[in-house]
Amino acid sequence: MPSEIPVYDIVIIGAGPVGLLLSVSLSRWGYKVRHIDNRPVPTATGRADGIQPRSLEILQNMGLKRNIMAHDPARVFEVAFWDPAPGGKIVRTGTWASCPEFLDARYPFTALLHQGLIERVLIEDLEKNGTKIQRPWTITRFETNHKNPEYPVEVDLKNLDSNVTDTVRAKYLYSGEGAKSFIREQLGVQIRHKDPISHVWGVMDGVVRTNFPDIKMKCTIHSDHGSIMVIPRENNMVRLYIQIASSTDPDFSPRKTATVEQVQAAAKRIFHPYYCNWERVEWYSVYPIGQGIADKYTLDHRVFMGGDVCHTHSPKAGQGMNTAFHDAVNFAWKMHLVESGFASRDILSTYEVERRFIAETLLNFDNKYAALFSTRQPTASEVDDAHKQDGSEHKNEFVETFKANCEFTSGFGVAYNPNIFNHSGEHPFQHPLIITDSQKLRPGRIMPPSNVTRVVDANVVHLENEIPFNGSFRLFIYAGLSQSPKKGAHKALADFAENLTAKDSFYTRFGCADRQRDNHHDMDNPHSRFFSLALVIAAKRPEIEISDLPAVFRDYSGRVYADDRRDMKVLDAKVAAHAKVGLNGDEGAVVVVRPDGHVGIAVRLVEGKGTMEALEGYFKGFTVRTGLGGGAERMRSQL
Amino acid sequence: MPSEIPVYDIVIIGAGPVGLLLSVSLSRWGYKVRHIDNRPVPTATGRADGIQPRSLEILQNMGLKRNIMAHDPARVFEVAFWDPAPGGKIVRTGTWASCPEFLDARYPFTALLHQGLIERVLIEDLEKNGTKIQRPWTITRFETNHKNPEYPVEVDLKNLDSNVTDTVRAKYLYSGEGAKSFIREQLGVQIRHKDPISHVWGVMDGVVRTNFPDIKMKCTIHSDHGSIMVIPRENNMVRLYIQIASSTDPDFSPRKTATVEQVQAAAKRIFHPYYCNWERVEWYSVYPIGQGIADKYTLDHRVFMGGDVCHTHSPKAGQGMNTAFHDAVNFAWKMHLVESGFASRDILSTYEVERRFIAETLLNFDNKYAALFSTRQPTASEVDDAHKQDGSEHKNEFVETFKANCEFTSGFGVAYNPNIFNHSGEHPFQHPLIITDSQKLRPGRIMPPSNVTRVVDANVVHLENEIPFNGSFRLFIYAGLSQSPKKGAHKALADFAENLTAKDSFYTRFGCADRQRDNHHDMDNPHSRFFSLALVIAAKRPEIEISDLPAVFRDYSGRVYADDRRDMKVLDAKVAAHAKVGLNGDEGAVVVVRPDGHVGIAVRLVEGKGTMEALEGYFKGFTVRTGLGGGAERMRSQL
Repeated sequence: MPSEIPVYDIVIIGAGPVGLLLSVSLSRWGYKVRHIDNRPVPTATGRADGIQPRSLEILQNMGLKRNIMAHDPARVFEVAFWDPAPGGKIVRTGTWASCPEFLDARYPFTALLHQGLIERVLIEDLEKNGTKIQRPWTITRFETNHKNPEYPVEVDLKNLDSNVTDTVRAKYLYSGEGAKSFIREQLGVQIRHKDPISHVWGVMDGVVRTNFPDIKMKCTIHSDHGSIMVIPRENNMVRLYIQIASSTDPDFSPRKTATVEQVQAAAKRIFHPYYCNWERVEWYSVYPIGQGIADKYTLDHRVFMGGDVCHTHSPKAGQGMNTAFHDAVNFAWKMHLVESGFASRDILSTYEVERRFIAETLLNFDNKYAALFSTRQPTASEVDDAHKQDGSEHKNEFVETFKANCEFTSGFGVAYNPNIFNHSGEHPFQHPLIITDSQKLRPGRIMPPSNVTRVVDANVVHLENEIPFNGSFRLFIYAGLSQSPKKGAHKALADFAENLTAKDSFYTRFGCADRQRDNHHDMDNPHSRFFSLALVIAAKRPEIEISDLPAVFRDYSGRVYADDRRDMKVLDAKVAAHAKVGLNGDEGAVVVVRPDGHVGIAVRLVEGKGTMEALEGYFKGFTVRTGLGGGAERMRSQL
Repeated sequence: MPSEIPVYDIVIIGAGPVGLLLSVSLSRWGYKVRHIDNRPVPTATGRADGIQPRSLEILQNMGLKRNIMAHDPARVFEVAFWDPAPGGKIVRTGTWASCPEFLDARYPFTALLHQGLIERVLIEDLEKNGTKIQRPWTITRFETNHKNPEYPVEVDLKNLDSNVTDTVRAKYLYSGEGAKSFIREQLGVQIRHKDPISHVWGVMDGVVRTNFPDIKMKCTIHSDHGSIMVIPRENNMVRLYIQIASSTDPDFSPRKTATVEQVQAAAKRIFHPYYCNWERVEWYSVYPIGQGIADKYTLDHRVFMGGDVCHTHSPKAGQGMNTAFHDAVNFAWKMHLVESGFASRDILSTYEVERRFIAETLLNFDNKYAALFSTRQPTASEVDDAHKQDGSEHKNEFVETFKANCEFTSGFGVAYNPNIFNHSGEHPFQHPLIITDSQKLRPGRIMPPSNVTRVVDANVVHLENEIPFNGSFRLFIYAGLSQSPKKGAHKALADFAENLTAKDSFYTRFGCADRQRDNHHDMDNPHSRFFSLALVIAAKRPEIEISDLPAVFRDYSGRVYADDRRDMKVLDAKVAAHAKVGLNGDEGAVVVVRPDGHVGIAVRLVEGKGTMEALEGYFKGFTVRTGLGGGAERMRSQL
């Protein structure tokens, strides 16, 4: 390699949601990122705008939510269903929570804000961490050459204004280009269309005057004149989605279009008997959407793809940006753990396995939902008539589909299948202390949220959010009632601490000498870049003295919590945070949470070496053999 | 008046907390503000930094809290008390919530952030509303001349850089100059010193390394080597307050000082046996503090004063900035209601009456607290000995004083005495429907917080914060169980609506024709600049149809709420928000809340004219006789 070719850890193509969130993560962790986008400026109006409850948690965990909420997005808590009524009218037939209480979301609503404002928040964060997006640049060629093991990917870039070109080398190339992807095309990766039906959609953002009572709600309206979806927006705006054509129409053309006036007239007919006048149109677009999913997300584990490059679907389930966020987060921590020498390169294969499975699930849902959305629903009186004739109870299939899928659409249905990270009965490593039957801690899913009191400053905090998305595995140690200071016994905790910091433990092997020298203000990674600990004690805050705890926890003084807050969801529980992860008895547990917040494994906390043995076996499944070296001795001498 | 003299609604001197919050309020409401400060730049470091729970609510109600919290202030939930222990050591003798649960605060903590960051948020808001602070400018002369009834105050200003002078005329002059006040001096207003003892304080902000376990808590430490107060700050900083000298010392001098090293050495002795090393000192200052209160806050109801101009005290109770905020808010709405033609000029006298009473209460507390803080407390063993000898139960007087005053120091003790706004048995107007015996709705105090569901968009919201600080009186109409849609009866509500919008009602008299013509997106003031309504219905959200409500409420569609949320404080209540204001029976009430969030009067909601009669009598007490005219006819024709 000639020395003048610049090298990067990663080249990211595209500054939409997937590219930006990946770039934010890696830039924060110190990676050298080359990030380009072929648009001259960020998204100005319109486009995707729904941030689902689980995505809000991800953004909060990254410290980005506050800046996004500062733009005062509309919040959707409920969806209203409107159906045809006699006389060409419409009538509300019911409402349903968009994220029902049983999902126990920290933020049980969808936030609606135009994509440009969301992008702006991510771009500001990027720039603080030294990455600048180059615009308008495009990719013209790329090649993976394994003869250069350190920087195997060569990429040619071109400035679309000046036609200046640049060749760079990188460890990875990531495509977040959107549905039209040069990289996917070059790789020859096929898009499979799950549904042979494609649709042309009109979407309009603006401010209306109306007496339609649910204009501030998310609504699905089926009428004799067609279907429409209403989505509230920031600044008194509303978005309407109208289906303009479907490939099932006799005269279908994917290039079918409609003017603003035509769409407004169609909306007027659907809203009847309510009036709907437009004060202002902010954005209007007509576009064909076909459902599709890429066969592969990577071919060589060096060039990866995510977001709309890999999956496209109808806009109505509000999943596009959210799926992109998940793609980015999933890839970011895996690349990080490989490149920082913690995990073996094999783990990169789980990116496609985990994310493609979710995309398949999404398309199956979208398929059904889109078809039902386009179908005229029976009126209330028609339902009554049918009901009289056959005696059956009528179910509105569209509504039933919506309800059945709200866990998925809220983002809490992102449940990864068993694999090397998500423990199950099929995992190569088994141990009797591994918790296998919990209804609350299910590997592959996220932890339930809970409130606890931070001992060091008595702040009431959200436990699940205390360890940020920092690329580390999170070890939540629930000490259990048997280890509470009142009982005077904490042998299980002491044994765990001793074995955790033993010379050859995974924790010590991947320790970092530098951190241990100067860890006074570092509450997340005082010993290791790869592990963050949080200790939850079943006691009232004033009963806990951090100086009485095993030495390892003293360096985590800011991550020790009292489980002393009441929780509306488990009012009868003695210790609510324990109960929320299913720990109702005396015993504690160590819950390993992946860097992205999904549970990896939960192990009972018992006296002796068993707990650590079980964790050791789990981490051996994907860490590199040697460890980083050097950390062990220094850690022992400090503790 | 020569036409070339510029005129303003108000000239504000000083851009500290009181001047800024006043300026923010009046600038938002469209007043022409001339605002100067004699400092060349805003506060750079140090100074006041504690925002109390009630002040956080005020800032939230003004939409300013989010930008302040974006600076990640430290949050103090609890205070730890440390006392002398044998061997010259210290020991923690207890902790106490800084804002205990029984106070039912929305934000039960104090936020700590340096004054400059808080000022910056207020200055940004000011500038958005067209007011720019001129620096460094000072006031050199002022005079009230009632021969000019519109702009009676003449003020000479001078630029301290260029010596350029400017003469302006204004309706009001407000001094927020701080303890050294030119205006107060010119007026000849005396400061009375409640406590003959004065103190010299050292205060130091910085980052420390320590094994003192409560360094992230607010602590009061009494040791054999003196007393210290510890206050956590943003960015891992801590603030220490150390008393350097007291006028009770034999060699006292108010000019006594101490170096950084001397204060650090004193702190070291007090912290023993814990170590405390300074990594960085951000700010250090020594200053004498005497307690004082101004005899008058105004002489002529044109030149007013507030903040430190009127009251000074020790910094330890963390009240300075908070009292200033209250002063500003209290003056702002009263001046607004006079200048906009709603209230008679007499009401301005309530500014001094209300705020000076609170300052007196503050000084009485501070007096006792400061004296106890300076007094060495007995060690635990001394307490035990005393206990053995006389058999009495020992109370630590300092701790007892702290606990007894936490309502006041949290800001919830700001309870204004009965006057023309705060109804009581002494009020000139009485009516049998006025609620006089409620433990929850006490005129002069704020409303308890509650969560409700906004009908129009199903958002779960904080009811007490739904109407912003917009200068309007707030009418919270709790419909009561008897008026719920399930009962099918809402005659009391219908009667109230009819009488509220009657031709000669206070609501109609102060209506505004312009607003009624174009009120589609105005949820706070659709009919009148002076009233904002909120309707709380005892029902589940889906049971409420806004189109079924009396016409007046349809224009407030965004201010109709379902009382359908459970509340941990009143778990057994059928309708929690009603219960939180003491409405446990079937009956509803209309609660009038002053523009600053303090309850004015509560009246039972009954069928017939009684409810409106009671409200009419209350508003007649301070509104001008005529009303604005014109609104009545137009409102009738619209509804």
